[in-house]
Amino acid sequence: MSSLSKSGHPLDLSRRFPGFDACPTPQVVVDAEALAGNIARMAQITHGKAALHPHVKTHKSLAVAAMQREAGAAGFTTARANEAEMILRAGLGPVTLAYPMIEPAEARRLLERVGEGELRFIADSPQGVSALARAAADAGRRTKVFVKVDVGLHRCGVDPHSEAAHALARQIDDASHLFFAGLLSHAGHAYGAGDPDGIRVVARQELALMAKLRDSLRRAGIEVPIISVGSTPTLIANAGFDGVDEVRPGNYAFLDLTAVRLGIATRDDVALGIAARIVSANGTYAIAGVGSKTLSSDLGAHGTSGTSSYGEAWAGGEETPFTVEKLSEEHAFLRLAGRSLPIGTPVLILPNHSCPVANLSGGLLLLARDEPPRHLSIDARSNSVGQA
Amino acid sequence: MSSLSKSGHPLDLSRRFPGFDACPTPQVVVDAEALAGNIARMAQITHGKAALHPHVKTHKSLAVAAMQREAGAAGFTTARANEAEMILRAGLGPVTLAYPMIEPAEARRLLERVGEGELRFIADSPQGVSALARAAADAGRRTKVFVKVDVGLHRCGVDPHSEAAHALARQIDDASHLFFAGLLSHAGHAYGAGDPDGIRVVARQELALMAKLRDSLRRAGIEVPIISVGSTPTLIANAGFDGVDEVRPGNYAFLDLTAVRLGIATRDDVALGIAARIVSANGTYAIAGVGSKTLSSDLGAHGTSGTSSYGEAWAGGEETPFTVEKLSEEHAFLRLAGRSLPIGTPVLILPNHSCPVANLSGGLLLLARDEPPRHLSIDARSNSVGQA
Repeated sequence: MSSLSKSGHPLDLSRRFPGFDACPTPQVVVDAEALAGNIARMAQITHGKAALHPHVKTHKSLAVAAMQREAGAAGFTTARANEAEMILRAGLGPVTLAYPMIEPAEARRLLERVGEGELRFIADSPQGVSALARAAADAGRRTKVFVKVDVGLHRCGVDPHSEAAHALARQIDDASHLFFAGLLSHAGHAYGAGDPDGIRVVARQELALMAKLRDSLRRAGIEVPIISVGSTPTLIANAGFDGVDEVRPGNYAFLDLTAVRLGIATRDDVALGIAARIVSANGTYAIAGVGSKTLSSDLGAHGTSGTSSYGEAWAGGEETPFTVEKLSEEHAFLRLAGRSLPIGTPVLILPNHSCPVANLSGGLLLLARDEPPRHLSIDARSNSVGQA
Repeated sequence: MSSLSKSGHPLDLSRRFPGFDACPTPQVVVDAEALAGNIARMAQITHGKAALHPHVKTHKSLAVAAMQREAGAAGFTTARANEAEMILRAGLGPVTLAYPMIEPAEARRLLERVGEGELRFIADSPQGVSALARAAADAGRRTKVFVKVDVGLHRCGVDPHSEAAHALARQIDDASHLFFAGLLSHAGHAYGAGDPDGIRVVARQELALMAKLRDSLRRAGIEVPIISVGSTPTLIANAGFDGVDEVRPGNYAFLDLTAVRLGIATRDDVALGIAARIVSANGTYAIAGVGSKTLSSDLGAHGTSGTSSYGEAWAGGEETPFTVEKLSEEHAFLRLAGRSLPIGTPVLILPNHSCPVANLSGGLLLLARDEPPRHLSIDARSNSVGQA
């Protein structure tokens, strides 16, 4: 694939990530213009077609969530309880907690802390519905529950060709404090579909499976209030919104090299990078002062990958990037391949996958032209119960 | 490789990680008995042979550092400035900051915050020595500097066959506030050496290179006060301590599947695991409620790997583990291969690499028999300047 982006220049560091070379390193930086562009583009794609409920797992930042709400987000999606609490405490609900909670105590704690009607759960098993039924009854809160449908990622979700969704929808409506919210899916296997044409095939399959299942439920007398789908690739490549009520993309706010490899973004769209400096060099590698504890070791999303390297390191004035060939915990090995990178040179690294990078960071530095850098805190960073 | 450990049982969850199945999940857990055993074993290996300066990057926990000090650690090793501050504020110095600092401002800030003589830096370039010289002079603090030697990892360090170390040692001693501390190396390529025999070959090469360089410096009239080497594999496989004054292993406190694959540990020695529960299941996979944001995507250390999977998930009563075949950010795909794992089943996952797991966690839960679980905080977690 060519390293040229649509701007005609590979990654113009005289224009992108302004001031990345002046900040203490390593530092996760966000290009304010690209971030605003990405948020506006998704708002435009979905406007008048489906309600946008961005997934906050990508940024875990209230400041970024506020920008998404400003651009028209109807609500937010989260994985973990601490992310849901972050959004609800800030008054940015409703939240779709798109993760199968199976522990009544955890769901009850969350329900007790938040207002009724602000939280929608998912379930894909009788055990999951039972856990939520007990949690809601114990908390004395009524809450909505989507049935999660497996449209091909084979992670969570009921088989859409089975009657499992019917049974779960009935179990939900039979529970005193639960209401059936509808059907929810995530076509994460779109990340393995290669290019926009392949992604649209996945997206059309998802829409067809969801519509067929909705019709089957209706024939059985079960109304389906909402169909919620969504991933960044299927929404940017886009195969229409037939029958879709809500969408839940996450990665679109920052994008990354995975999106570039899939052909749904150019390097000019990537809003998150890592500012670092060269700290050592030998005949083979320049060593940048940033490693897997900042970049993560992700090659792609959901274990898919179109690469065996860990990102691209760009230096001012260079037309092509240096490949991040290996990572230690605090070092990146940049293959020199005959070029040189003197010690002290600032580099801007584009990562394979933005979401784990934001999660690992202690905070993001928002870089805009003609404005001082602005610190964005990560407000729901930990996934470990210890800090929740 | 057989899944049997030296205890005659693969991983006896009736004995290991006591209570892992009772804690809220996901939770990074530490087996107190294995941790104590690992700390005692390294103290025994090095006792009377070389001063032990454990690398804290593995745990970033003052509680674990205190256990290492109790067992005889003479000082500590760190990568980042925030790790060094954590140790020095707790009075656990001296600290060897085994990372080539090239920004005078960062080194100066650190020197101003800590006592003279408590901090030893490294350098592998004239720029690095100049940065430290300026920082120390500006801070008005005298400090020691090791010359970092590349013994085969080809990351940082001077070529031991060149005269670079001589020039740097002279540059250090010529600087008003710097003192030449000696030679320092890290044979991280031992992680790619396959087995204990291969690791000992790497360790012997390291000792020979360091001794030869020390002799060459002495012939040039430069005394070498300290030779500091060390990695967990080279110390456990062990090729002796000829000429070695200090050692700096890190991973040995927790160990992981990388150490098991290298043949330097059994599963019974691995002290860090991740407690999770099965949240969903389909015909191919059981899905555990923990992903790359807790486990990391590391396959090994320094980009080496003997695996294409992300860990082993053990369930009580099972003789063999379930392979963690793929990871999403909050989900692990456990290959069922004809077995079953009902929703709600607690699993204990052994990771490929412990160090990034502790770094990602919000805290560790120390599990001991007949004692309540004890929370260990991560005291120097962030690598991003934003939170430093």
